[in-house]
Amino acid sequence: MNVITSRDNAKVKRFASLHKREEARREGLVFLEGERLCREAFESGIKPSEVIVTEKNVPWAEQYAEGAEVTVLSEECFKKIASTVNPQGIACLIKQPVLEKDVPIRGDGSDVYAVLEDVQDPGNLGTIIRTADAFDFTAVIMSKGTCDPFNEKTIRASMGSVWHLPLVTASLDDAFSFFEKNGVTTLAMHLHGEELNESGITLPAAYLIGNEGRGLSEETSAKCKSLVKIPMPGKAESLNAAAASAIIGYVLASKRDAR
Amino acid sequence: MNVITSRDNAKVKRFASLHKREEARREGLVFLEGERLCREAFESGIKPSEVIVTEKNVPWAEQYAEGAEVTVLSEECFKKIASTVNPQGIACLIKQPVLEKDVPIRGDGSDVYAVLEDVQDPGNLGTIIRTADAFDFTAVIMSKGTCDPFNEKTIRASMGSVWHLPLVTASLDDAFSFFEKNGVTTLAMHLHGEELNESGITLPAAYLIGNEGRGLSEETSAKCKSLVKIPMPGKAESLNAAAASAIIGYVLASKRDAR
Repeated sequence: MNVITSRDNAKVKRFASLHKREEARREGLVFLEGERLCREAFESGIKPSEVIVTEKNVPWAEQYAEGAEVTVLSEECFKKIASTVNPQGIACLIKQPVLEKDVPIRGDGSDVYAVLEDVQDPGNLGTIIRTADAFDFTAVIMSKGTCDPFNEKTIRASMGSVWHLPLVTASLDDAFSFFEKNGVTTLAMHLHGEELNESGITLPAAYLIGNEGRGLSEETSAKCKSLVKIPMPGKAESLNAAAASAIIGYVLASKRDAR
Repeated sequence: MNVITSRDNAKVKRFASLHKREEARREGLVFLEGERLCREAFESGIKPSEVIVTEKNVPWAEQYAEGAEVTVLSEECFKKIASTVNPQGIACLIKQPVLEKDVPIRGDGSDVYAVLEDVQDPGNLGTIIRTADAFDFTAVIMSKGTCDPFNEKTIRASMGSVWHLPLVTASLDDAFSFFEKNGVTTLAMHLHGEELNESGITLPAAYLIGNEGRGLSEETSAKCKSLVKIPMPGKAESLNAAAASAIIGYVLASKRDAR
């Protein structure tokens, strides 16, 4: 077994830099650390592009990440790439899906995409991902200003749904091009939209949810085919982003299943 | 102006004990502390049963709590009843609504009630209250094991909706009696329920949402007229409590508005 013991080793340096979310994102990777997090991802069928363990966790890697490329680090080296003081000695790299390459089009008109512009709260994001998974939507596409789908709070709020469907971080311009090319209609959830009329909705569809405080930007709204508002006869001025997402998600799922 | 300066004063002792949520609940009261919290409640039309301020905040009380009974405490005395080390010197008591007395029946068949059994997450509770407010539901009724609707996190998540509709903590047995007496149908949100069929739903209605981990108890489910499940063709096994509440809430609101 080849154990890397030098903190100056090129691989160690690379892992340490990939631990910074921005750096990993640039390479299209997600760095996961910790036994439970990695195991849950693998058990959901995620194939790691690389597994990084300390010597004592080699049997773990053999059990849970069979067939993956495994790099073994000394405890000291692992500390350099870990975010905790006493790391468990288990981490991995997975590929984050990419819009053009990894977002499927089912082609039978059943596709629904959740599109998020700068959603900030990890709990909201996790709940939105969980709902999209429950309704078997095709993917969740997030603007670059949306919080990280692979941060711990989001993963927890998603109840594991982060591993069940493609989560893509992309520019919304690219997302609109993708929708146009594939005949996907776009619905902006917007407080100045028309009241949601279920009969007027066609599939495949993408629904867009904006930032918790500002809502969807005017720039993004202007690019959508229609602006839709959930009727609110009460005193609250708006709905929570995850609640709005659940409602429009339910409406689109019902529409799809009624075809 | 009569300023209470003795920490042994009977009123001071009473306020100090009411600051414990359990004690206040026994008396049907809610203790709110802090300028912003009290002001938001008053600005939403909540009439305090008692306002408690330090000397320097008497003008504040005159401005925001006109007509209320005001008790003035010395800074030292206020510290005894406050939860922070450097309190702002503003607190109030408000009456928590009571099931039989304060929960209205509109009588035109438009009533919808959200009923929560042991919902634990303050963020979920706040979001459920916000959604119920947005849909102009009649009240939110919470089992005694549900987290406190007036804790800070819940109030924040509700975006002020906690002040817009009656929030009642009650035994669910009393809630079922109330619904039976008033011809309100009861829908349990339950993973073993029948798939939600909008045409089968009648109003007035109450929908019941259970604890985040356990769902609705079998005991409570058995008392409901029907068990309903939101169809979930995807991999997620369940929905977040606030997401499920938003969906059934939307369905019931649409039903009501379509009458």
